[in-house]
Amino acid sequence: MKAVNVGLLGLGTVGGGTLAVLHRNADEISRRAGREIRVAAAAVRDPAKRRPVDTGGLRLTTDPRDIVDDPGVDIVVELIGGDGAARQAVLRAIDNGKHLVTANKALIALHGNTIFEKAQQRGVMVAFEAAVAGGIPIIKLIREGLAANRIEYLAGIINGTCNYILTRMQEAGDGFDRVLREAQDLGYAEADPAFDIEGTDAAHKLTILASIAFGIPLQFERVHVQGITAVGAEDIAYARELGYRIKHLGLARRTADGIELRVHPTLIPERRLIASVGGVMNAILVRADALGPTLYYGAGAGAEPTASSVVADLVDVVRAITTDPENRVPHLAFQPGSLAALPLLSIEQVETAYYLRLTVVNRPGVLAAITRIFGDSDISIDTILQKGRGRPNENVTVIMLTQETRERNMNAATAALGKLDTVTGEIARIRLERLP
Amino acid sequence: MKAVNVGLLGLGTVGGGTLAVLHRNADEISRRAGREIRVAAAAVRDPAKRRPVDTGGLRLTTDPRDIVDDPGVDIVVELIGGDGAARQAVLRAIDNGKHLVTANKALIALHGNTIFEKAQQRGVMVAFEAAVAGGIPIIKLIREGLAANRIEYLAGIINGTCNYILTRMQEAGDGFDRVLREAQDLGYAEADPAFDIEGTDAAHKLTILASIAFGIPLQFERVHVQGITAVGAEDIAYARELGYRIKHLGLARRTADGIELRVHPTLIPERRLIASVGGVMNAILVRADALGPTLYYGAGAGAEPTASSVVADLVDVVRAITTDPENRVPHLAFQPGSLAALPLLSIEQVETAYYLRLTVVNRPGVLAAITRIFGDSDISIDTILQKGRGRPNENVTVIMLTQETRERNMNAATAALGKLDTVTGEIARIRLERLP
Repeated sequence: MKAVNVGLLGLGTVGGGTLAVLHRNADEISRRAGREIRVAAAAVRDPAKRRPVDTGGLRLTTDPRDIVDDPGVDIVVELIGGDGAARQAVLRAIDNGKHLVTANKALIALHGNTIFEKAQQRGVMVAFEAAVAGGIPIIKLIREGLAANRIEYLAGIINGTCNYILTRMQEAGDGFDRVLREAQDLGYAEADPAFDIEGTDAAHKLTILASIAFGIPLQFERVHVQGITAVGAEDIAYARELGYRIKHLGLARRTADGIELRVHPTLIPERRLIASVGGVMNAILVRADALGPTLYYGAGAGAEPTASSVVADLVDVVRAITTDPENRVPHLAFQPGSLAALPLLSIEQVETAYYLRLTVVNRPGVLAAITRIFGDSDISIDTILQKGRGRPNENVTVIMLTQETRERNMNAATAALGKLDTVTGEIARIRLERLP
Repeated sequence: MKAVNVGLLGLGTVGGGTLAVLHRNADEISRRAGREIRVAAAAVRDPAKRRPVDTGGLRLTTDPRDIVDDPGVDIVVELIGGDGAARQAVLRAIDNGKHLVTANKALIALHGNTIFEKAQQRGVMVAFEAAVAGGIPIIKLIREGLAANRIEYLAGIINGTCNYILTRMQEAGDGFDRVLREAQDLGYAEADPAFDIEGTDAAHKLTILASIAFGIPLQFERVHVQGITAVGAEDIAYARELGYRIKHLGLARRTADGIELRVHPTLIPERRLIASVGGVMNAILVRADALGPTLYYGAGAGAEPTASSVVADLVDVVRAITTDPENRVPHLAFQPGSLAALPLLSIEQVETAYYLRLTVVNRPGVLAAITRIFGDSDISIDTILQKGRGRPNENVTVIMLTQETRERNMNAATAALGKLDTVTGEIARIRLERLP
């Protein structure tokens, strides 16, 4: 069969990795795909720049339009990132009837609904496996592998930077700032790490996962987002003592009242497989009605792991080029006309268990006052642990684990606790998921 | 679009599960597939039998030919099992131009080469996701999700019965026979458990996995197969003491000299994620050149998990019915003309590390004699542990871990050890994989 011509937008880390993998594994890939996948051209900022990858035989241009307008290009691979120039190029490529492969989570999470609608009208495919969890084929898994199931729940370690930092804080006992600097030195965190450590990146990915899991439109703006900057080394240590790990998870859950979409640090039982996923690795736990729980683990970032997804998408697109569009895998797993307008819950409506760390004055009646507040807020307490044996009227630390309660109730309880004059300093509060 | 008509061969555990999932999730499934998947008929042994699943509206027959010859049936789902009647029915269905979905690992492992060739000639698909690791979409993952990669290595817990038995032996400290009976009582082991505990079932699955991973023909007869019946409770305990778990793995590895295909119990470091996979659960670790290591975990058996794979296959087949055959995913991941005749290594050529348990007479010079034998066989010793402090001339247990060595060398060393009059009783020998 005829070779397929690919045009790359961007030749940075992932672009270079894609080129390297396509070259190195050209034989294996074409033995699988049944035809050659050839990179014909790439749009780059600086064509004169020296690159670690062989660009021989590649037409380089500085203008993405030279790629997306080129009649010789069958598939455009967008690796520019962000939702500015990338968005323009993608929309124009679709207008020109090109199929697309992208690793751009922000683009899909923020503008996917429009992009997919346009692609649908134009009869082209937009593949985005590399946008979530790097090399783990989680989009394919959920869209196709679990097609028989009603998906109930998913929980993912989907930001490698956060997972690295929390893992190192746990292993070394160091504080957040120190470990962040270490992660930056190792290249696991950006110079400006906000996007990762404040949860935005994970929220983009969760938006996409939830959409294909539940058959709902992409709704990034409805995700409750919380980063890891407030997690203390002492919280990780106390959690561990109680048999838990603290992980930064993206969680999407179907409940009787609607869908929960949330990204936040949370305690999880250390016995769960996902609790052992350390360092920069990613893992997604999915619970589906027929299949039960499954877990998918692998590299969530990096040049070649991400390229692995880009190239797998290329093979899929190549195979489906001649397929009539209504028989292709729908972009959001469900046929475009059959996405459901399931209600999304606000965070106040969400029910979880909690971990709390209080600093209290060691005085008779303190615990009674605290527990009364929880009783009044209709919150059951699972565990109370007083740390240290402070002398009378000195400060001691109290750790509490609650049972499941609405965020609203916990807000009320926390406010009331803050008013007790025996509770001094900040109240640390982290959700706890048992991952049923 | 028009509904697709499915004919089931067999309505036992998996058949019932498939029917239940197709009924319960009919809405989700057709919203994904874009059309209804309808079970029109089923071949069963006893049409009058009461079944836990609603068979209303289903034409029941005792003759599989009524299904495979029925012009109204688009896809045949073979759930008879074994390679007798199932094989006849499958070949006849292909002759009749029907697409096939099967959960039958023995059939694919033993007769897949012929079946796929015939299917290829006739232009029909044979889908077999349910044949390996139950509900985990591992076939799809390797064939499609990892299409960019040169796969180097895979190691799978792919027999739930073996994993259950080894997990319980470890947790309870009980011996093999006792735990086997417990597994039988719980329905995790068959009344005749040989097929599982002697490794045949895992070897069938490994045959299939290796073929799609490396692009080689199915070669069940070349798999080195060893079950778990010789694993002692004491070996599990000693392994644990040294930081290892004993798991029954299917291993396929690409080496410079050829492909290793082996199924056997093995020590693995307890820190590896796969070491924590307990009970009847399955998990497959895959190492690929671009992606690195990934792990896939889930239920390896059971009515609905297996049905999850059967129905996912149905959706895939439905989508690809109108695709020109050369653009469909090849049965063995690589285009039929491009399977490679890679050499397979005999077990004597395989290199692994080893765990050994010896009973020796507590006498000066015993360890010197033992270590000399290893030196003579060119085997490096990592760890020697003498258990207990037997009095002079009493028996004590010696545990040894070796570095990687060829099976051939270890056979020589074991034979020489057996000839020492200070080594009494059987020598327990289990491979050790560091899972790089």
